[in-house]
Amino acid sequence: MKLVLFSIAAGSGNAPVKPGVMLEDSVVDISPAVQILSTPQLTMEALIDSFEERRPAIEALASCAARLPMELIKLHPPLPRPRKLINAMGNYWEHAQREARPLNIFLKNPDAVIGPGDTIRLPETTEPWAFMHEAELGVVIKGPVKSVSRAEWRKAVFGYTCTIDVSARGEGRVTWKTTIGTSWIGKSFDTFAPMGPCIVTADEIEEPNDLHVQLWNDGELRHNYSTDDMEHPVPELIEMASMIMTLNSGDVISCGTNHEGLGFIQDGETVKIQIQGIGAMELKVVDPLKRKWDRGVYLGSDATHHAVVKRNRPDAKLGDGTASL
Amino acid sequence: MKLVLFSIAAGSGNAPVKPGVMLEDSVVDISPAVQILSTPQLTMEALIDSFEERRPAIEALASCAARLPMELIKLHPPLPRPRKLINAMGNYWEHAQREARPLNIFLKNPDAVIGPGDTIRLPETTEPWAFMHEAELGVVIKGPVKSVSRAEWRKAVFGYTCTIDVSARGEGRVTWKTTIGTSWIGKSFDTFAPMGPCIVTADEIEEPNDLHVQLWNDGELRHNYSTDDMEHPVPELIEMASMIMTLNSGDVISCGTNHEGLGFIQDGETVKIQIQGIGAMELKVVDPLKRKWDRGVYLGSDATHHAVVKRNRPDAKLGDGTASL
Repeated sequence: MKLVLFSIAAGSGNAPVKPGVMLEDSVVDISPAVQILSTPQLTMEALIDSFEERRPAIEALASCAARLPMELIKLHPPLPRPRKLINAMGNYWEHAQREARPLNIFLKNPDAVIGPGDTIRLPETTEPWAFMHEAELGVVIKGPVKSVSRAEWRKAVFGYTCTIDVSARGEGRVTWKTTIGTSWIGKSFDTFAPMGPCIVTADEIEEPNDLHVQLWNDGELRHNYSTDDMEHPVPELIEMASMIMTLNSGDVISCGTNHEGLGFIQDGETVKIQIQGIGAMELKVVDPLKRKWDRGVYLGSDATHHAVVKRNRPDAKLGDGTASL
Repeated sequence: MKLVLFSIAAGSGNAPVKPGVMLEDSVVDISPAVQILSTPQLTMEALIDSFEERRPAIEALASCAARLPMELIKLHPPLPRPRKLINAMGNYWEHAQREARPLNIFLKNPDAVIGPGDTIRLPETTEPWAFMHEAELGVVIKGPVKSVSRAEWRKAVFGYTCTIDVSARGEGRVTWKTTIGTSWIGKSFDTFAPMGPCIVTADEIEEPNDLHVQLWNDGELRHNYSTDDMEHPVPELIEMASMIMTLNSGDVISCGTNHEGLGFIQDGETVKIQIQGIGAMELKVVDPLKRKWDRGVYLGSDATHHAVVKRNRPDAKLGDGTASL
């Protein structure tokens, strides 16, 4: 089942956000079968907690209630304000190009979440940053769980969603911009955490490490990889994150990206992410400063990246180009 | 005014959590003057948003309502589940020992917050970590605010609290434990974010960069520094964090610590933090593994730390000792 949060698109913009089931080209309002709490986030968390008991009523609604065509509705991120956004670093073998790396995770700003059709806004800064997309599988937690072994990983998973880990990349390790890099805070700007279009429940995804992930920028294919290339697969991610933190319903673990498909995002572009078995969503990009970077998949080294960044801000003092987000 | 969340200590443990004003040796229930929402966190956020209009009623209650003696109540963290816990790295000159460093911040697990009288639980892990206290001034935000210049910093501040940035420290950069270090996730274990005892409103603290911070471990003084030694003072912290993220009411920025007062925490100890003008709180430490480290202020280098860590786990494979949280 594909769970969404949606509102009626026409009207004031203050239309209430409701839980729904996403079908092929439509959404069914499942509010009558769900406990509606004070925020859409809390409603979705409660739905995660009570899903098995509510499922028959939700399925009955989905099969007989009115189908609202996609054109009439606006989809919202299925978890608009998660408690914790946990992201893996690196985490893909990239066709055996990478040495084995220890698993590592960082926390991303949960207030940065936006959803389908929303706009990624590049920050107005004079720092010589560039901004990249990272398409990632998102694992939606059912909790509370703590110290889950990798063998028991399924008990922590409610479902899956698509996430883009938008990242500000600087250069060098000595400057302000790169300390931003090493703390990963460059991934926490407002709007840098697109999520959606839905949460597909875990029963529909037999193997999360065998999914096709794609991202297009203005129709040009960038990311195009399988999650079977993940270095530390979903069970390991859950084991490690839950060793550190109690994971709660509605927390999201983003599994990292295959850097082979990296590319810049810039003003006026539209990015589309699609993951097999989950769905697709598009987002717009706005940059008040109208900065320009190369289009296409980013094939260069960190040093090339450095040059690209510097071209954009020729007066900037740059580091040694050794850092990488 | 010193705002708290509290419950009646005697009884089932399910006593409701209420907002209060903390006086010398007592607390006054201010529920009648406050909008009570579905969680204590939301109640405190709403109180922050409406404080000026509610202040006269709260002051009237504080002066005439029943005073509940401290022995009868349990204090809770004043912001039990903040949306964002933003922490500065390093950030003290430490008597001019440090080279100038760029300001950097990281996000800490907001579900790790505990309050006065609660227990810091060291994780059960076979990794060769040690655990340290870091006493820090916490700035409580009034938002939403974005891109606040350092000159306008006061408009983003509702008040102040005491925080301890409990930290797992490993060694080297090549191993699992240290990649935990470099992502700062070693500061996000459950219970690693003590906060309290109250939020003191900003009008009571004329200059947040002139406060005395102290921390005792079993009565032994460890941290003992002034916030006037802060490298990037509160206005700069607010400017930088709000450049990246919209800051919302109830978000907390912890200002970093003076590392001169670092020390280990271990099973059975009691730590007490006190900040001038805010107040004091005590926490217990429990370690199911009963590990032992040196007592006293930690005066050694990272290499010494490395040796101390290794003594605890003589069989562990260690890195080169160059990493430091």
